[in-house]
Amino acid sequence: MTKHRKAMVGRAGLFGAVASLLLSGGAASAEEFFKFEGGKLQRPTGYREWVYVGTPLTPNDMNDGKAGFPEFHSVYIDPASWAHWKKTGEFREGAILMKEMITVGSKSAASGDGYFMGDFHGLEATIKSKKLFPKEPGNWAYFTFTTADHQTLEKSAAPEPASVCNSCHAKIAADDWVFTQYYPVLGGAKGKGEEGTGGKQDKLEHLSMPAR
Amino acid sequence: MTKHRKAMVGRAGLFGAVASLLLSGGAASAEEFFKFEGGKLQRPTGYREWVYVGTPLTPNDMNDGKAGFPEFHSVYIDPASWAHWKKTGEFREGAILMKEMITVGSKSAASGDGYFMGDFHGLEATIKSKKLFPKEPGNWAYFTFTTADHQTLEKSAAPEPASVCNSCHAKIAADDWVFTQYYPVLGGAKGKGEEGTGGKQDKLEHLSMPAR
Repeated sequence: MTKHRKAMVGRAGLFGAVASLLLSGGAASAEEFFKFEGGKLQRPTGYREWVYVGTPLTPNDMNDGKAGFPEFHSVYIDPASWAHWKKTGEFREGAILMKEMITVGSKSAASGDGYFMGDFHGLEATIKSKKLFPKEPGNWAYFTFTTADHQTLEKSAAPEPASVCNSCHAKIAADDWVFTQYYPVLGGAKGKGEEGTGGKQDKLEHLSMPAR
Repeated sequence: MTKHRKAMVGRAGLFGAVASLLLSGGAASAEEFFKFEGGKLQRPTGYREWVYVGTPLTPNDMNDGKAGFPEFHSVYIDPASWAHWKKTGEFREGAILMKEMITVGSKSAASGDGYFMGDFHGLEATIKSKKLFPKEPGNWAYFTFTTADHQTLEKSAAPEPASVCNSCHAKIAADDWVFTQYYPVLGGAKGKGEEGTGGKQDKLEHLSMPAR
């Protein structure tokens, strides 16, 4: 195996799903980045290689020790839905966003005082699908794979009752039940094509901030 | 153009660089995700589609109004260097990491009190290259594209004097001058292959935290 061949294998691992879609001609079923079987979402994998959109932080020490979503939450969107979003400004049928919870590991570092990430702590997902969730508001369903001890993850999850999540998502989220106002990568790229991928223009994006 | 063809074009835009590498056989020059000319780094573009590794937060209100790196900093690594890192646990020749600064837009939301991202605010980069920076410690050079008014970005940047950055990076960074202790995606994936891409194993990664 040559050096280049080895490097290609590395990249093929990273972008395998997308590369195989490109090479295969893109079968419709392969456009979904999740598996929903028997009323349950199988825990998605590989999402740390999707497109990152933003990180809200609700630290326990600012929420009486009991943050609803402790503490950092790194949010990702699947690559095909990202491509659709930056082109159209809309979430496509079959869009999936992952929210990975991460503890606060430290509050002081060489760069100053603040909040610094610690350990992975939980995992949630939301999917927009008219086909799968015709009665859910906006066709979004919500899932959690987090367990009580935060040491393991569930292998699959049934949708949460809509009321649990939509009391916030329906009223306050800026775009189609999604909190794009806190996800600058989504807010900045909405319908803007390649300009939204970072640094394509001289002027920094200054987002309009609804719901503030 | 068929629906599938359109979808493919969207994905091709997203992963164009990598797909063309896969299809072309991966020329050595194409493995670099940056352009360094005349002693300056051209401002990288498209990095929001690279692999996100973590978000330190040093808010102004926790640093006497003058954080050194205001305020959120979303950090990305180029895809080829990510593939190398998860395989070997090392940063390859030609690795580039981008740090995008984002203001704090809000301190309260439906999910609780905390810190929520606002606008893009600045952009920095670091590159490891023995070829380009043979005399820099660890062969890392640092660049900033941020301007004083935070409204625009520089089109190119010369390396910062090593002493400006390395007084922190040399002493405190956990891996090869990089603060992997605050980047759980890097820390969790170090040499772990596909396990590091998210959710491939039942047990949540619990990172060892040096330099705490």
